[in-house]
Amino acid sequence: MRMRKKKHLDTRMEQCDSLLVTSPQELRGQWLEQFKNNTAYGELDFNELHIELGCGKGRFIVDVAKESPDVLFIAIERISNVLVAAMELVLQNKLNNVKFINGWVDDVGEFFAEKEVSQIYLNFCDPWPANRHLRRRLTHQRFLDLYRNILKEKGEIHFKTDNLPLFEYSLTEFSRCDFALSEVSYNLHEHSPQGIMTDYEKRFHEQGLPIYRCVAV
Amino acid sequence: MRMRKKKHLDTRMEQCDSLLVTSPQELRGQWLEQFKNNTAYGELDFNELHIELGCGKGRFIVDVAKESPDVLFIAIERISNVLVAAMELVLQNKLNNVKFINGWVDDVGEFFAEKEVSQIYLNFCDPWPANRHLRRRLTHQRFLDLYRNILKEKGEIHFKTDNLPLFEYSLTEFSRCDFALSEVSYNLHEHSPQGIMTDYEKRFHEQGLPIYRCVAV
Repeated sequence: MRMRKKKHLDTRMEQCDSLLVTSPQELRGQWLEQFKNNTAYGELDFNELHIELGCGKGRFIVDVAKESPDVLFIAIERISNVLVAAMELVLQNKLNNVKFINGWVDDVGEFFAEKEVSQIYLNFCDPWPANRHLRRRLTHQRFLDLYRNILKEKGEIHFKTDNLPLFEYSLTEFSRCDFALSEVSYNLHEHSPQGIMTDYEKRFHEQGLPIYRCVAV
Repeated sequence: MRMRKKKHLDTRMEQCDSLLVTSPQELRGQWLEQFKNNTAYGELDFNELHIELGCGKGRFIVDVAKESPDVLFIAIERISNVLVAAMELVLQNKLNNVKFINGWVDDVGEFFAEKEVSQIYLNFCDPWPANRHLRRRLTHQRFLDLYRNILKEKGEIHFKTDNLPLFEYSLTEFSRCDFALSEVSYNLHEHSPQGIMTDYEKRFHEQGLPIYRCVAV
């Protein structure tokens, strides 16, 4: 999707300077050491590194980050216009456990070392319905291999989508690539809202559309 | 399904006498000790116990039993007319590693002890589509709890169906009951026939219908 260039993007980006990691390759293998958790009791190390692939405007990552102050969250988003909104939301919420990378999912292996990541969030990624675009789906084997490399033993991929064909494809692909599946749901919020929702998800849920979810280990 | 009473059922049943375990409760916890594997080299113990729930006319259990002579297979079928055909097939194939129970899946806990079973096959069970019949589906939580009890640690349930709603229901139910899922497939034989097929399955496959499969651990 080509987005209209928003006004004052550069100024806005500058204001979020402290949240954007411009050379993530240099922090590969050292994310947890590099950042400290400034708490009321002084500096503490973070316990775990979680990443979100395609964070959009940041609603989800902000909400999970609030819930887990001992986890360092890295959100990756390639569209600057969207990324800046996510960073502003983190600033507004005064969160010190979320950082951002303006980059591509293809490069996660350059950003993170083997077994460095405990959890990956993959929310409402592009379904790329055409068969010729299969390789672009973020649950295609070529991506799953990248994720497996950076995930710890028993590390988890939390996957949500509103697209049933993508969900079916992803379940198959996860298990074909030897991930074990748990928490499979074809209607996540059927009885009551479950867990933290993205902006998209709230809208879909309000429209009564089912949300598909699974966890791959 | 009410089946026409086949002629000579009693005579036929008598001829398969050696294959039918009439008091399975008495063998609870002792199946592997009770039966021996008569090989060309003498008697050997079986290594594992696998069971099929609803074996129909036995095509599947006969084919898997041929492949794994070191495994003892117990096939459960409640309809005598069908069961007798399965037993005859085992006789014809001179297999000594398949025995039968003429009984109900509800009673597996009485037939097998805790952690006695390594693998459960659940092939093309009745989808019971109506919501009021949910509890009759063989992947309903009340059955999964029974299976978990008799399965060893890391024991597996191999599930196949041609019914997509039942498949989706089952994936959800397995993971809700803390089974981990692997080998999820929405079109098992898409590229080439995979594994051993039941009679139903061959027919569906020939008609180009997809077969859904997963393994729950």
